[in-house]
Amino acid sequence: MTEYRCGAALIDPQAIVHNLRQLRRLLDPPGPQAAPRIWAVAKADAYGHALEHALAGLGEADGLGVLTLDDALHSRRLGWNGPILAMGAGSDLSALEDPALHSLHLIVDQPDQLAELSRLQPLQAPYVWLRHCGELHHAGLQADEYRKAYHALHAEVQAGRLAGLGHLQHYAGAENPEQLRKERLAFHELISAMPGPVCTENSAAVLSDHVSARATDWVRCGIALYGISPLHGRTGRSLGLRPAMTFQAPIYATQKLCGGQGVGYNGIFRAKRDMRIGLVRCGYADGYPRGVQGRCVVGIHGRMAAIVGRVSMDTLTIDLSGHPEAVPGDVVTLWGPGGPDIESVAGWAGTISAHLCVGLTARVPRILRGQTPCGV
Amino acid sequence: MTEYRCGAALIDPQAIVHNLRQLRRLLDPPGPQAAPRIWAVAKADAYGHALEHALAGLGEADGLGVLTLDDALHSRRLGWNGPILAMGAGSDLSALEDPALHSLHLIVDQPDQLAELSRLQPLQAPYVWLRHCGELHHAGLQADEYRKAYHALHAEVQAGRLAGLGHLQHYAGAENPEQLRKERLAFHELISAMPGPVCTENSAAVLSDHVSARATDWVRCGIALYGISPLHGRTGRSLGLRPAMTFQAPIYATQKLCGGQGVGYNGIFRAKRDMRIGLVRCGYADGYPRGVQGRCVVGIHGRMAAIVGRVSMDTLTIDLSGHPEAVPGDVVTLWGPGGPDIESVAGWAGTISAHLCVGLTARVPRILRGQTPCGV
Repeated sequence: MTEYRCGAALIDPQAIVHNLRQLRRLLDPPGPQAAPRIWAVAKADAYGHALEHALAGLGEADGLGVLTLDDALHSRRLGWNGPILAMGAGSDLSALEDPALHSLHLIVDQPDQLAELSRLQPLQAPYVWLRHCGELHHAGLQADEYRKAYHALHAEVQAGRLAGLGHLQHYAGAENPEQLRKERLAFHELISAMPGPVCTENSAAVLSDHVSARATDWVRCGIALYGISPLHGRTGRSLGLRPAMTFQAPIYATQKLCGGQGVGYNGIFRAKRDMRIGLVRCGYADGYPRGVQGRCVVGIHGRMAAIVGRVSMDTLTIDLSGHPEAVPGDVVTLWGPGGPDIESVAGWAGTISAHLCVGLTARVPRILRGQTPCGV
Repeated sequence: MTEYRCGAALIDPQAIVHNLRQLRRLLDPPGPQAAPRIWAVAKADAYGHALEHALAGLGEADGLGVLTLDDALHSRRLGWNGPILAMGAGSDLSALEDPALHSLHLIVDQPDQLAELSRLQPLQAPYVWLRHCGELHHAGLQADEYRKAYHALHAEVQAGRLAGLGHLQHYAGAENPEQLRKERLAFHELISAMPGPVCTENSAAVLSDHVSARATDWVRCGIALYGISPLHGRTGRSLGLRPAMTFQAPIYATQKLCGGQGVGYNGIFRAKRDMRIGLVRCGYADGYPRGVQGRCVVGIHGRMAAIVGRVSMDTLTIDLSGHPEAVPGDVVTLWGPGGPDIESVAGWAGTISAHLCVGLTARVPRILRGQTPCGV
């Protein structure tokens, strides 16, 4: 096993390739109609996987979803030449005039973006997705504004100043089938008299009801691309996905505890009998969740070892009682292949998987799987 | 108020200067004996404040505490020329031979470091602090090993191969006065027959019992330097400290909710009456804690506004009912001067303040207070 001096997240673009194909298979309709195209959502530096590494697995995606126009420019600099969906561009749209932002799709979710769009002279007209606020109410236009904006933008399409106009919404409760059905229905009622392609389905919606998702024109897949389940109680692996991230860190020392001795702050763990503890160079300053002790495990040499004692800034402590072979320099897997599923760690931490992978800090290098880890 | 497009942490080195002086005042003994010197602990990129900015406030510190020898080299590159304490160097100590690592103090906490120290030929002999495992059991030698290592290292000092030898421990429960007293006593018993300077006190120990801290030779202050309280139920401000970080983000849009409508995922918040919501460009992908809604506030125009609805990856939503003047582009303070104390946010999030400031991700630029924020 390779020796590290610090934690590292190993990223496997082949897993992303697999997950994209898996989603495409789900979305492929049995009949002659076209399958929806896929926006590969890569917000938050590709959900913490590092955009540059994620792009290595996204060659087959139909487009790339990012948050801001700055992010769009960054993805162009990293070599992404396909369509880009700017999902939260805000009201300053002047970057649209940058020639690098060809094939740009823009989510319009604020009324003041309309005036800004009229003012600008991009070399290539952007494609606009009008966003309804839906039940989420994270930006997006209310129904009346939406209809008004649709007609104004439609005229711009006719005048050749926009490349196209579609309908977009983000669900508030895509993991809940009943809620999802209700939100889908309300949106389709709203847009029934306004022709145009539809982009409403995210990973959770695609995975919980792919038949409905097939009837749309573009889907937006984020978390599932990275092999992580957006559905409560499911793992990515149980959905046929492969985790793209393996988060690892080395044991930097071992320590003997006598029965009754504690480890970690405030002695919340005490040894029942003599035992051996591994000190792992990973803590909450790396983005590992604090306070999972007593529930959470790490993988070592293909088996699991329990985290004991409080997770501290730079160290977490594991029970090596069942691992007499483990020595300093050995690498443990905090989540991903060889360790617990990220979904399990998230459950133990009382949060969601996306929180864990995007929460890794700058201290954790993201390394292409197979490349040399840090500190060697 | 300056306009931003993303969140930013503004860092005030003058607050660090103030906090260091405040700690020095506490440590200054009334009699003729010397006050302890202060290691300014700057692990985890200066507790998330960015080491380069923190150094601007640390000119009066007696030394700088970092985790690894790589961090020590990094602080030299950033211009720190004083003593450096490497707090978790591990067993590969070859960087000690780098001439940049003059005035290096090394914590020895693993037996195999002794052989490594004998093998190396640094230009300038390092100073060694022998660490006892104490009740924390995060590295550090057990009592028997400790005595043996002390005598071996003492001989190295005599031979001129080490610059000096001191005693070091890290407490497991420095916030608890009774526990602290017990741990102090046990350590002093251990070292009573082994002369040498003592370094045991951290921020919590200094602030909860500065009289005992005065009797030591070096103290290690981390969190308090940044103006944050290490003591449960206290704020940095109540201890005479000034927060060095102000974490801010802009409102990127506002949204009207009718009575009964929800905002955010899974509709966990529903408006009781018509209200106006501010959408803030900050979420858990920035390191803001997820799931604080219903308890937590942000500052806007000098008053507080409640967070409502689930904190999402890129957005948090605030109740603007009492803030008719607030408009998109306005900046809210997530913690620090002008907003809630970081200690309050940590309490609402069920964690500690250090977790919040070191958990900010690479997406949040750390900016010297007074410099231009991002996205302008």
